[in-house]
Amino acid sequence: MRDVFHEQLDAIFSDLASICRNVEAAVGLATRALTEGDAEIAQRVISGDREIDLARERVEDAAFNLLSLQQPVAGDLRMVVAGLRMVSELERMGDLSVHVAKIARLRVPEVAVPREVQPTINKMAMTAEDMVSRVAKIIVDRDVEAAIELGRDDEVMDQLRRQSFTELLSEDWSHGVEAAVDLALLGRYYERIADHAVSVAHRVVFVVTGEYPRATA
Amino acid sequence: MRDVFHEQLDAIFSDLASICRNVEAAVGLATRALTEGDAEIAQRVISGDREIDLARERVEDAAFNLLSLQQPVAGDLRMVVAGLRMVSELERMGDLSVHVAKIARLRVPEVAVPREVQPTINKMAMTAEDMVSRVAKIIVDRDVEAAIELGRDDEVMDQLRRQSFTELLSEDWSHGVEAAVDLALLGRYYERIADHAVSVAHRVVFVVTGEYPRATA
Repeated sequence: MRDVFHEQLDAIFSDLASICRNVEAAVGLATRALTEGDAEIAQRVISGDREIDLARERVEDAAFNLLSLQQPVAGDLRMVVAGLRMVSELERMGDLSVHVAKIARLRVPEVAVPREVQPTINKMAMTAEDMVSRVAKIIVDRDVEAAIELGRDDEVMDQLRRQSFTELLSEDWSHGVEAAVDLALLGRYYERIADHAVSVAHRVVFVVTGEYPRATA
Repeated sequence: MRDVFHEQLDAIFSDLASICRNVEAAVGLATRALTEGDAEIAQRVISGDREIDLARERVEDAAFNLLSLQQPVAGDLRMVVAGLRMVSELERMGDLSVHVAKIARLRVPEVAVPREVQPTINKMAMTAEDMVSRVAKIIVDRDVEAAIELGRDDEVMDQLRRQSFTELLSEDWSHGVEAAVDLALLGRYYERIADHAVSVAHRVVFVVTGEYPRATA
């Protein structure tokens, strides 16, 4: 049997996983809005962010209650604070999905990303969504191995971002300034989602092992 | 006489103010590197970020010690957690200065920002630097009025960002895709520095009054 403290901590982590799945859905929908030029889907992401914000508040309240009532020290204390940080990062990932959705909405009825460069941005979007999906599972399973592996895969995103810059700064670029600026910002948003995913995964490692992976900056 | 808890909390806030002044210097130098196309200054910002990271670790350790040894509850607990969040945001502002410096360095011996659009980006840079400078003072003085005012001034940054987009997406833009992308990303970095400055200021309001200003999302 787990004690009250650890039961409540488990409840917080289960809420974190559920927020993470909401973020995963937001990233997926924002990408659909982007590639399909669909304002209605974009709007769903933008309005839906409120739910992520409210869930964040609930987790924060639960964490503060846990700190106040149980007064954990040492490792237990650090776990609760890690939970507080994870929920901030998940909320931020939701905000970044909203930024993607807003670029999509701004260009409707056009599509923000020119067809020729869609492969790179699609790979970035899929990489980000996949990373968020894996983080949700990592939180549920407290899977240290998977969390460390996620950190290594972040390099894929960095490569895609470089590739995207090469494309939009090439002499052959024929899609004008607006599409280039959209792409650069979209790349930035997906990259930040991936960064946060890695950071959340590394906090899971910390919660389980008491130490952050060495790779974390 | 203040008790041990509040003395140690004061020490943490004094460290936060000192980190904030380092961030202010980083923002100022990054902007100089950008407008002068000076690789050596850019490099100083990039290398100097390590110091901000280390200072962050020291504040985090102090905050955890305070939580573990003093076991504060209710308002006192929330103040320490606010301090932990402030130091994360200040570190992030340092990272964003590094991003500005890296764009500057990438374009040396050229200057990333075309002369004609320097006024807007200069205003953004000055606004960001000014906001960071005011936050340092707000932390020292626990100045609630000044903190709330800072939140209102964030609108200036939003207007500058819109203006910058208008410039780089106008039909008259003659500086090519690379300069437009640089400008869009620089605008994003300065805007994020300003966002974090407002957030840190609002946390000061919380520490003093026990409540966040209403304007905070």
